[in-house]
Order: sequence, then structure tokens, then C-alpha cells
Amino acid sequence: MSDKQQNAISPRREEDFPEWYQQIIKAADLAENSEVRGCMVIKPWGYALWERMQAVLDRMFKDTGHKNAYFPLFIPLSYLEKEAAHVEGFAKECAVVTHHRLEMQDGKLVPAGPLSEPLVVRPTSETIIGAAYARWVKSWRDLPILLNQWANVVRWEMRPRLFLRTAEFLWQEGHTAHETREEAEVETMKMLRVYETFARDFLALPVFCGEKSETERFPGALRTYCIEAMVQDRKAIQAGTSHFLGQNFSKAAGIQFQGRDGAVEHAWTTSWGVSTRLIGTLIMAHSDDDGLVLPPRIAPTHVVILPITPKEDSKAAVLEAAEALAKALRAVSFFGSPVEVEVDGRDLGGGVKSWEWIKKGVPVRIEIGPRDLAQGTAAVSRRDRGHKEKEFLPTAEIPSKIAGVLAEMQEGLLARASAFRDANLMQVDSKEEFYAFFTPKNANKPEIHGGFALTHWSGSAAVEEQIKNDLKVTIRCIPLEDAPEAGVCPFSGEPSRQRVVWAKSY
Amino acid sequence: MSDKQQNAISPRREEDFPEWYQQIIKAADLAENSEVRGCMVIKPWGYALWERMQAVLDRMFKDTGHKNAYFPLFIPLSYLEKEAAHVEGFAKECAVVTHHRLEMQDGKLVPAGPLSEPLVVRPTSETIIGAAYARWVKSWRDLPILLNQWANVVRWEMRPRLFLRTAEFLWQEGHTAHETREEAEVETMKMLRVYETFARDFLALPVFCGEKSETERFPGALRTYCIEAMVQDRKAIQAGTSHFLGQNFSKAAGIQFQGRDGAVEHAWTTSWGVSTRLIGTLIMAHSDDDGLVLPPRIAPTHVVILPITPKEDSKAAVLEAAEALAKALRAVSFFGSPVEVEVDGRDLGGGVKSWEWIKKGVPVRIEIGPRDLAQGTAAVSRRDRGHKEKEFLPTAEIPSKIAGVLAEMQEGLLARASAFRDANLMQVDSKEEFYAFFTPKNANKPEIHGGFALTHWSGSAAVEEQIKNDLKVTIRCIPLEDAPEAGVCPFSGEPSRQRVVWAKSY
Repeated sequence: MSDKQQNAISPRREEDFPEWYQQIIKAADLAENSEVRGCMVIKPWGYALWERMQAVLDRMFKDTGHKNAYFPLFIPLSYLEKEAAHVEGFAKECAVVTHHRLEMQDGKLVPAGPLSEPLVVRPTSETIIGAAYARWVKSWRDLPILLNQWANVVRWEMRPRLFLRTAEFLWQEGHTAHETREEAEVETMKMLRVYETFARDFLALPVFCGEKSETERFPGALRTYCIEAMVQDRKAIQAGTSHFLGQNFSKAAGIQFQGRDGAVEHAWTTSWGVSTRLIGTLIMAHSDDDGLVLPPRIAPTHVVILPITPKEDSKAAVLEAAEALAKALRAVSFFGSPVEVEVDGRDLGGGVKSWEWIKKGVPVRIEIGPRDLAQGTAAVSRRDRGHKEKEFLPTAEIPSKIAGVLAEMQEGLLARASAFRDANLMQVDSKEEFYAFFTPKNANKPEIHGGFALTHWSGSAAVEEQIKNDLKVTIRCIPLEDAPEAGVCPFSGEPSRQRVVWAKSY
Repeated sequence: MSDKQQNAISPRREEDFPEWYQQIIKAADLAENSEVRGCMVIKPWGYALWERMQAVLDRMFKDTGHKNAYFPLFIPLSYLEKEAAHVEGFAKECAVVTHHRLEMQDGKLVPAGPLSEPLVVRPTSETIIGAAYARWVKSWRDLPILLNQWANVVRWEMRPRLFLRTAEFLWQEGHTAHETREEAEVETMKMLRVYETFARDFLALPVFCGEKSETERFPGALRTYCIEAMVQDRKAIQAGTSHFLGQNFSKAAGIQFQGRDGAVEHAWTTSWGVSTRLIGTLIMAHSDDDGLVLPPRIAPTHVVILPITPKEDSKAAVLEAAEALAKALRAVSFFGSPVEVEVDGRDLGGGVKSWEWIKKGVPVRIEIGPRDLAQGTAAVSRRDRGHKEKEFLPTAEIPSKIAGVLAEMQEGLLARASAFRDANLMQVDSKEEFYAFFTPKNANKPEIHGGFALTHWSGSAAVEEQIKNDLKVTIRCIPLEDAPEAGVCPFSGEPSRQRVVWAKSY
């Protein structure tokens, strides 16, 4: 790849967004498909991103009183069956374990040792965690239980797509049990707000916080809340969910306790989760035609230093200066942690190396060569600016400036994403306008449409179905608003309590 | 549980070691069996221990140049078949996925959507990671690949036991590929030494580092190295392994590269792992008849402060003093990280609370009550001393002393474990002496025997088999020694290059 080329990624976003997405993942070396259908290999740079997300979220969960635990991968069929809506929701996409060994038969390895009861690889863990809580809870004094689990889950996706929909994915699932309905409702909203904060402050993503309509509710939940982000093709991605499960799962699993008044009651439960889908969201939201763009607060590496060593006689001095700068930068704090610096001393052409880090989305690149050394400067490039832009700064000043630069980039990415979303968000009050909004202007680019439409809606599932069939557009959420304004549903003419968010989605 | 009782755990170690082990896990609230055969629930305190182990090991792996990645949970049958010894080793204990959905038939949920090729839930990942490396490696410039994965694995254990043998367990598996045999051999030994260091410096466990005999080798490896710890019933636990895989797996998976001379070669690979078995090892090595005993460097909480608030009027002042002490202690560094402190302000009797933390193994307990407040003192109890021992110290002095106390406990536990091992380790030079060493002195306590025996051994598998059949004793390892002393095998009379370690084992 040459230094002179226009852009690193082909096709560009506007040419073919879905293919651009695949190419970003490849160029940034984040993940790839394995030969096991729908199961991805998360490569080191992609996994480093996930580790960073995990570290931040884990801190946020612990700060809100949660602890981690671990529950079995396998769920007995009989557990799933206990909650009718739940089994209905997941039965179509379960990996089922039926045997516990392999045997050679006629020179061929075949499953043997059939299980008396098949086991399902967890698609989510409400039922198996519910069974544990039923063992643990006897009295109101045993509540609340506030646990989280970091785990892999499996849902047999028919149309897998790296990070967005994969048969196996990594996630966290919080599962809490409470004495009262109110406490469980507070928990549900608290964790939704944790996700909102994480998306905004770390992923630099403005999100809509709201409730799902009944159609899109988690199987078995009383209410499902979500955060919905807009990505660069104006579609929505559900980036996290928080479910108020009422007493459905506690009745199914038998989570009962003796209350303060001595009567036996069922616990109120919640569950909430985010997954490696966040990586897909991040990619689609911020990346450009040169590759991934990482918000500094979620980047595994903030700064990469690229020593340029064309001549053998100055090589040692350049490398030494690079290491000294790295050391000085690592002593700087960015939001309470050291600036993460990598020195890429590989014997490769400077252009090749630089492009690699552009594609990986590292926020700041610093080149130091023999001439810079003589002048006491270094060339600083920011990932949120064009790939040709460089600023020559006195090397000694870089450490004192770096935290400010990173913070500015973080804010800038959020501002850009917010402006983009607001520009593609419209209040719509007639059916015609709505259909026009979601109809591609250009038949060759069927993916380009209006964005998010806010309309009144009376609560009718028939309206949802009609619009989904006509336009592949769904209600992403009913936004949480302090003082919603009533109106009339433009589709049914029925009265509506507030506007809802409609969009095409991943 | 009363303050006056003798011991918290019944039975005591010397009465019934296996049952004592189960009771420790229960008393410390570390884990429990689920209704899914062989699969455990790791409870918050057990998982906190695992998180601490993960954090330390992860740092050690990264410091030795490794990165994390993630590979699929499912392995196609055809992958396993490629390495003959490997499939032979794991076929008897594999969870096999044969269907990808569930269907209602006659009111009963049954597996549906049969897979064209069954998938095995990974028992270990050499084959699926090998397939990825085969895609990634083209030239010697692509090597080495130094990756690690934190994951769950499944081996269908017929006699499961919490932490030691479970159908599903958590572990890390390092997988590396190298250009030369020598480089892979260096890696194998490097990671063995990382495990040895971790066991000694964090778990306070002296271990034998050595090679496994062919009988005990990892299926498909050229050489398997291990660390072997002695626990309090004098049995051995294999706590970690590092395998030199030669070119076996790279030939099976096709990890080929163009070498420096242009010729196509197969890579040399290694793998190495430790698992939640380490928690079982830790429990068996250090716990006493009052519960778990945690070496401070691996304890999730170093100090628990127990405010004693018998009277309402002094309660606020006592709680305030407890929080102030906690703050002062958290400002202290223990091996580079803050001292971890918990204030247990629950409204429970002081005795009940104190016993809970004794059983959980927290290194230091500090009680503060109204009288202490008046005198400016607090009662400090160390978990490595008897549960009745308390030292009254001026509260103001505790922060300056705490790191020293923790370090002393860490050293003390290692010294105690080392002395115990050395006391139960014997050089044996005759068959009679060997059989006597491993024969229980008391028929009522069949588990009590000599410990570790060091004998010469000629390399004969027949000798191993005979001894295993007679005594259930196996070679734990052939220790790594700089200058082994030659001798004669007492069983076969054949010449021997060095002594090997024999023991009963978990």
C-alpha cells in the first residue's frame, strides 16, 4: 500500500456500506470467519478492544454494587420449557448437545453415549441462573442478589455477520433478584443508564434510551429497554438491553422467599446485557474510508510511535528518542489511567507501518526520524483528521499536550456522531412523508434512506407489522421522556401518548 | 455459629480429607454443583479468586510477549480426526452438538435441524487454532504467533469434583507457532517457568517442575511439562502444563511457511494452560479446620474491617472510624497495588460476621468497637494464626504496618507449605521401602500415606503400569535438574539417568 493513495478501504462507505464494513474489519485485523458456520475468530486487535470494553463496564457494574459469578454453559431442556414465551423465542436457534463421547464405527468417528436429557448451549442464562437463585433465596434477607457473568453464548444465526450477528458471541449478562417490584424496576433503569453512559462517554455514541414495543420484547420479559445508536448508513443498532422480568422467571424457577410479613412471595428479577456487537456498532459509527477510527477512551493503544530509520548510523539514536518519548507519554494520565503507547520498531517502510496503524484506528501517530531528532521535533498525526495531515511539534511539548489532544478527539467524535444523527432524524406527521423518508432516492443504493423517523403511535401491533412488511422499518424504541407530548398516530388515526423512533436496523 | 466453638469445619482434615474439602468450599461460599451433571456454579467469592488469578497471569503472559484472542467454542469432528493421538485422547469425553434447534413434537420439545457434521464443544483448542494459524502463516516473517485465550472448555468427567474435575471448567490456553524447533522449545520452558513463578510467588506453593513420562503426555504432544504441587493429604495435583507439540499439530492443520531459504516448512508449535483447578489446589494446600486460608497476594480482599456497634449512640462514630481506617489502608501499596479493604457494616452479631470472614480466608480482620474508639486501638487478627488470637494495636499505626504483615503472611504460608512438602518427600532406593511408603499405616484412613517418593527409573512403561495397578501411584514428573545423578531403577534393575517423583494424585 503506497503513501500516495487516496484511501485505504475499497469500496468506500458511500459505494457499498456492507462491503465497506467487511473491509474495515479485515484492514484493521479485528476478526474473521472460521470454518465453523457463523462462529468468528476474534483476532488480537479486536480482542484488545473487547478487553478494554470489559474493563470499563466491569468497573461500572462493580461501582453499582454488582459482583461477578459463573454459571454452567449447558441448560437442561426442561429448564427452558418452564417459561413458555422464553422457549418459544429461543427454540429456533439453539445448539443442542445430545451425546457425550465419540466412537469409531466403520472407520468413521460418530457421536456416542446419548444423554438421557439433551442439553442446550446457553443462548442466555435466565433459566439456569434462576435455578441457582431458587436454591439460594429463602428469606427477604437474602435479597437483593446482584450478579453479572462474562460468558460466551450461542444462537444459531441463519445470516451471520462478523460482530453483529454470530452464532457464538461474547457478552455479559447481569441477573438480579429483588424483594419488591419497585426495586427491580429501579435496577432495570439504572443499568440502562449505565449502558447509555458507557456508549456516550467511551464509545462517543449518542443513543436513544427507550422501551421496546411488545413485538420486540425479550421472550419472557414484562418490559425491555434498550439503547439504540445510529450508524453511518443511517440504520439503527440495538447496542444494549435491560429487561424487567417481573415475576415470570422467578415463578418458572421457583425463586421464593419469606417476606417481612412472613408470607411467601416470588422474587422480582431483571437481566441486562451487552455483547461483542458493540464492536460492530463502534466500527459502523466512526470508521472512515481509511479504516477504523477509535475513540481514545476505548482505544487499547492511544499513541503509536513510528521511528524512521533510513540510515544505520542514526538508527540507535532515533530508537532511543522514540523510547524516551514513549516513557514520557506513559507517565501522563488520561482519565485516570496512563496513556497507552506502542513503539513500532519493525524494519518496514514508514509508509507501510503508518498505514497499518491508520487502518487500526489508533488515535495518534508520532513519527520521529533523524531530521526530527536534530530539530527536536516530531510529526504528530491525528486519526480524526485526513491521513496526510501532520503537525510538527517540539518533542518536549508532546507529553504535556497529549491528554488534551485525546480528550479533544473524544469530544469531537461524539459531536460528529451527534450531528450526524440529528441531521438524519426527522419528526414525521403523515404516512406519505414517512414512506417517502424510508424509500431510497436512488434505486442503485437501496440502503440509503432517511434515517430515524419520530412519529406518534397508538400502540397498535398491526401498524408495526404493516410498516415492517412494506419498508423493513420497525419501532426501535419508545423514548424515555419526562414530559411526552400527546398526538395522533399518522397510520391509524388513533390517539398517541408520545412519539416513537422508527428505523431500519441491524 | 458461636464464637466459642473449636473449629468451623467439620469434619477436620485428619478425619476425612475429601469431605473436609467439600465443606471448605461450602463454608467459604466458593462454588456448588448445578443440576447439570459435572457443571459447577462458581459463586462470587470463588469467581473473585479466579479474577485475581486471571489478572496476575494475564499480566505475566503479556509481559512475555503474548496477546489475547478468541477462537470458536465448536470444533468440527473432521478437525479432531486429523491428529490421531489427539482424537484418541479426547473422544471418550466430548460434548457433541448434533442439532441446531428445538421443535415441539407431541407436546414435547425435541432436538431438530440435524447438523451435516457434528460439532464438538472444545475440550482444548489445538485443532481449531491450528486451522486459523494455517490461514495466517505464509512466510517465516509471520512467525512467531504468540496468543493466549481465556475460555471455557468441556471434558465429560465421569467422577466430577468441584474445581478439580468438572465437565465444564474455565482456563487459559496459550498457543504459539514458531519458525524453529529451538524457539518452540524455549517457549515451552519459558511458560512452564511462568507457572512455577506464579505458584510460588502468588499461591505460596512450592512445585516440582518436570517432564511427564510418555504415559501421561498430552495427546499429540512430543513432550509435556508440568508443575506438581503437594497438598495436605500428601497427594499431588498437576497445577499447570506446558506442551512442546513439535510439528504434529502443524502437520495436521497445515501450518506451513516459506522459510528463509525459500523452502516450505511446517511450523513448530506449543500450548500451555492452567485452569480453575488452581482454586482446588489452593484450597487443599493452605486451608485449615476453620476454612479457607488465602495467601495475601492472591486474596481478592486483604483486610476486612468489622465495626462492632452494640449501642445506637456510638454507632455512627464507630462506622466513621471504620471507614477512615479503610481509607487509610487503601492508600497503602502492597506489591504495587492498593491494599483491598472491605468494611462489613451489616447488622449481624460480631461473632457471626467474624466467622464468615475466617471461613472465607481473608488475611486480616480488624474489629473496632466503642471501647477501641476511646482507646485509639483496634483488634487485629491474622488468618494464619489461631482464630482466637487478637492483637490490640494503636489504630494510627495499622496502615504503616499492614503491608509488612501481609508480606510476612505470604512468606509464612510458602515456608509452611515448603516444610510440609519436604517433610513428606523421601528418596527411596528399594521396592520394599517404596511399597511401604505408599501403604496406609491405618486401614481406617486409606488416604494417608507417605507423600512424594523420589526413585530412579529406567524409562519403562511396564514399571509405571505395575505400580499404578498395585498402589494407584504414578510418576508425577521427571524433575528438571541441571546435573542429574545416575543410578539404578529399584523396580527393574535397569540403569536410570535420574530420579523421578512418584505420588498418588488428583
